[in-house]
Amino acid sequence: MLKAILSSVVVFMAMASSEAAIKTENVDYKEGKTALEGFVAYDDSVKTPRPAVLIIHQWMGLSDNEKMRAQMLAEKGYVAFAVDIYGKGVRPTSMEEAGKLAGQYKNDRKLYRARGQAAFDWLKKNKMVDAKHIVVIGYCFGGTGALELGRAGVPAAGFVSFHGGLSNPTPADAKNFKAPVLIAHGALDKGVNPEVMPFMREMDENKVDYQFVSYSGAVHAFTQKGAGNDPSKGVAYNEKADHRSWAHFMDFLSEVAPIKK
Amino acid sequence: MLKAILSSVVVFMAMASSEAAIKTENVDYKEGKTALEGFVAYDDSVKTPRPAVLIIHQWMGLSDNEKMRAQMLAEKGYVAFAVDIYGKGVRPTSMEEAGKLAGQYKNDRKLYRARGQAAFDWLKKNKMVDAKHIVVIGYCFGGTGALELGRAGVPAAGFVSFHGGLSNPTPADAKNFKAPVLIAHGALDKGVNPEVMPFMREMDENKVDYQFVSYSGAVHAFTQKGAGNDPSKGVAYNEKADHRSWAHFMDFLSEVAPIKK
Repeated sequence: MLKAILSSVVVFMAMASSEAAIKTENVDYKEGKTALEGFVAYDDSVKTPRPAVLIIHQWMGLSDNEKMRAQMLAEKGYVAFAVDIYGKGVRPTSMEEAGKLAGQYKNDRKLYRARGQAAFDWLKKNKMVDAKHIVVIGYCFGGTGALELGRAGVPAAGFVSFHGGLSNPTPADAKNFKAPVLIAHGALDKGVNPEVMPFMREMDENKVDYQFVSYSGAVHAFTQKGAGNDPSKGVAYNEKADHRSWAHFMDFLSEVAPIKK
Repeated sequence: MLKAILSSVVVFMAMASSEAAIKTENVDYKEGKTALEGFVAYDDSVKTPRPAVLIIHQWMGLSDNEKMRAQMLAEKGYVAFAVDIYGKGVRPTSMEEAGKLAGQYKNDRKLYRARGQAAFDWLKKNKMVDAKHIVVIGYCFGGTGALELGRAGVPAAGFVSFHGGLSNPTPADAKNFKAPVLIAHGALDKGVNPEVMPFMREMDENKVDYQFVSYSGAVHAFTQKGAGNDPSKGVAYNEKADHRSWAHFMDFLSEVAPIKK
């Protein structure tokens, strides 16, 4: 009898958790007059406002990578919004094109901030979202964007860069960070390495709350499965660094924007 | 009826977990002819071999700090051995004395390694211990010791330094690390900061698997409550860095020496 009741409890609990159906939708929104198209994932069974994660894409624009992360985060209970910096339909098809486009935003931080701000505002107004607990994250090019939103004083609950560029044309803006920062950095990322010391100096001087993690053996793009497996090319997937940085990101979320159970 | 049965299940589970009584004992052991006195903590209700953690003390010698960590680790299921580097009864009573004693071992890495090895051997032979899953950790002076055991080729499952010195008189020995390394470093640790770049270079050159975490605002001894709260003194407790580095250590243990449930 006890066994029977206990196993029905287990079955019931399994049903309850499988009811946690993740919904995903494309999202049309705007920055000024520019049409943008993002992607949101959330657990439709949750009825109360909950923390959110804003995900900024790498240089190829919003891709399956960010959508996969949004899905993973929605399964953890977050509203996850994979945003669009480039504009609806603007999706580079070559690395050359991606480099050009990313460079445009890296050289116009004001525009980059505005695009990120528009996405942040969309999340903030969303009824599913606990607006005090929005964490901004980004990959490669998007890591730079996540930091740029912090430097713009956006009232997020945290900022995370995965193998993002750390350059900052306006170092004094580091004082505007309003929440903790997590940097997941590939120790062998040749492009970003020269930016590490100036970055840490500006963060220290402005007393920003940060954690900086270097993962050995990891080069640029270490969380991106599509980046191949040859670190000698300067970009490559690194499974260990991917899993470890994700675990560190989960610790960070538990601290700055925990899901209430 | 269901309610009644479920609540007895809950009561039963609570009893089972409170039965997990942690035992602690002083341990007499030797390195050569030198008598040493460590401290072991373990869950007496566990009957099968389990992973272990070897804890090397800071410069004041084996103290309540390491015993507290041993207790915390035993509660997680580890056999935790807080070791004695200096010798039975050799416990500095002033910082001057501690500095002298720690300096002696930092200048005689062969002796330091031998003392650590003796503790490792004690754990390895202990019937409670799964000898393939021993993780070596250390605080301040002891962080250096943990790394030194890695450089000696000790077959541990991992090595962790909390605000430890990173200097290495024999950089080529970095090739001997047989397991992953986690460095928890205070970003404002003035004593250790000059050692960071050479350390990372030797770790990279020897392809050691490591994670290096810098915690903002943290100075030397950031996990030690007795270190006070004034970072301008160069040593101070930092609650955020303490909690974050402990969480990162837990992630590390889950990876290299998980407790089977």
